[in-house]
Formats: sequence, structure tokens, C-alpha cells
Amino acid sequence: MDDRLKKQLDFSLEIDKEKNIFRQTSLSSHGRKENDAEHAWHMAIMAYVLKEYANEEIDISKVMIMCLIHDIVEIDAGDTYAYDPEAKKTQHEREEKAKERIFSLLPDDQKAELSAIFDEFEACETPESKFAHSMDNLQPLILNNSNNGSDWKEHGVFASQVYERQGKTQLGSEKLFEVTDSIIKENIAKGNLK
Amino acid sequence: MDDRLKKQLDFSLEIDKEKNIFRQTSLSSHGRKENDAEHAWHMAIMAYVLKEYANEEIDISKVMIMCLIHDIVEIDAGDTYAYDPEAKKTQHEREEKAKERIFSLLPDDQKAELSAIFDEFEACETPESKFAHSMDNLQPLILNNSNNGSDWKEHGVFASQVYERQGKTQLGSEKLFEVTDSIIKENIAKGNLK
Repeated sequence: MDDRLKKQLDFSLEIDKEKNIFRQTSLSSHGRKENDAEHAWHMAIMAYVLKEYANEEIDISKVMIMCLIHDIVEIDAGDTYAYDPEAKKTQHEREEKAKERIFSLLPDDQKAELSAIFDEFEACETPESKFAHSMDNLQPLILNNSNNGSDWKEHGVFASQVYERQGKTQLGSEKLFEVTDSIIKENIAKGNLK
Repeated sequence: MDDRLKKQLDFSLEIDKEKNIFRQTSLSSHGRKENDAEHAWHMAIMAYVLKEYANEEIDISKVMIMCLIHDIVEIDAGDTYAYDPEAKKTQHEREEKAKERIFSLLPDDQKAELSAIFDEFEACETPESKFAHSMDNLQPLILNNSNNGSDWKEHGVFASQVYERQGKTQLGSEKLFEVTDSIIKENIAKGNLK
């Protein structure tokens, strides 16, 4: 087997580990916590189904691969809970190290390509990355809402924190932010959010 | 919220259930069995990384969404193990019913679009569906190989059965079938396959 293909297959096997990185979001019907691979799969399909609501024209192929790989660094860096300020302080450094190690398994051109897509997601400046962030927020929101806000209740999350995080949804989709806003308001009314 | 968006969000929540459909493939490092959502996520990234090996020119965006949704019907129909002839007899009927119910949650145009992509995968006649099938085969193969063939050993699978299933890889990629062939031969030599 040539070196290029061997590297691509090594990377393909390595990313299997993302299925062991668990998040703070519970599956619907009050299921177990979901993992990063499941979250990314869900986001990518939602991006495809909801693409008509993007504020700007988007390349859906780029959005999908961005959704699929955006959490790969967590294989080394672990999941950083959106409402954990201490962990957030070291998140960038941990994820940069992980990005270097994991994407270096690929041939150089693909390392450069996937690292650039990861960086584009993080910077959240292009239409594709803004829409991918909308999915990154909306996907756990609909699960948590379906569970009557159990994840927020577990962590004693404040509505202001949720608005701060979910604000990015607006950058990618004004229309989907209307949904976000109405879900948050409903959960405040129910006492699920402080 | 308008009816169209409500339907799209209902579908988005429904597909969460795919994370509870477990397959016969074990995660690497002799981990637990993987589920359909994880399998689909893994396939879609592998398709992106390995797309240069497709026999024919492919639209990678279509391959990715095809990989992502190809097992959604198993929410109702359950996973049918590749080497279970009894379950295979009723598979088509079970999956057709599931397809109708699940994709009907979407607006009509998207129901038609995603059902067509699902059917295209099943028919395995277009370049995209052939390559998606290559991924459907190669993804569990590399996991099983990394675990020294434990899934085959657990079910007492014969090499001829593996060749029959993995033959489809060749339709999508001659180059990747070389990898498949060498992995199978290696596992026969090790006694992992009968």
C-alpha cells in the first residue's frame, strides 16, 4: 500500500475515538448523554435539511464536512462544556495541540485542507462557518427542549448564559434564531432556566 | 412557526433515535458496539478523505448526504446484520415501510428528495451510490481488522461471505478493494476468518 493511502486509512481509524467523547447533552426521551460523533452526524443532516434558512448563500458540501470534523480535536482535548468558564480558559491551547497531532496523520495537502476548515469554523466569519455554528447550537437545543430542559436543570444554567451562547445562531440564520428565542422563552416560563 | 419549518424540526428530532440502533461492529480498541449514527458519520468523513480513489467522478456532497441518511430507516426496521440470511429476507419490506413513515415527516419536496437519495443508495447503480457502498463496507472492515477480526470470530463468519459482501467495494473503488482484499487475506491467514 502506498504511503498516501496508508496515512488516509490511519486517520480514518484514529477518528473512531471521537465516538468515546461524551457531551453534556442527553439524547431525546431522556436518553444517555450523546457523543461527539453522533452530535456531528446530527448537525450535518440538519444543515442539509435546513439550508434554505441560511442568511447568506452557502456551499452545503463545505458546511457538511465542517460539521462532521469540527469536534475531532476533542479526541485529545476532551469536550469543553459550553457553560464551564474554567475549562474554557485552556480550551484553545488544548485544541490547537490536538489539531496538530490528529490532522498530521493525513498527507500534507489534506492536513492543510482539513485544518483550514477547522480554523474557518472556529473563526466563525464565513457564511458556511456561521451556519455550521447555528447547527452546533440548534442541535443540542432541540434535544434539551424535548427533554424539558433537563441538561440546563442538571447544571443550573441561567437564561443569560444560554442567550450568550445561542446568539451565534443569529449570525448564521435569523429565521432559526426565532426558533431558538421562542424555545428559550418557553423554558424560562416553565422554570427550566433560571 | 410555519408548517414547513415545523416539519423540518420534527424530522430533525426524530432522527435522533438512530443513535439507539446498534450494529454488530465493535469500536476500535475492542470497544462497545457502534450505532448507526456513528457509522454514518464515520463513512461520510471517510468518503471525503478517500474520494480521490472513486472509480468514476463523484459529487462528494451527494455522497456525504447519502452516507449520512442511508441507515435512517433502521430507526423502525432495526439493523439487519450483513451475515444473517433470515433477517435479510424481510429487510426490504421493513425498510420500505420505515422510509415512508420517517421521510413523510418532512415537507413533500424534501421527502421526495431524501427518499430518492435513499433509493439511489439501495440501487447501487450511480457513481455516488457505488462509492457510498464502498464506504459502507470499508468502515466496519477497518474497525474489525483493528480488533483482530473479533466481530467475525463472534459470529463464525466465513471468508466467502465476507468476499460476497465486500465485493461491492470494487464497484466504487478498485484501489480500495485492493486494501479490502489484502485485509481479508491477512485475516484468513491469522485464522480470524473461516
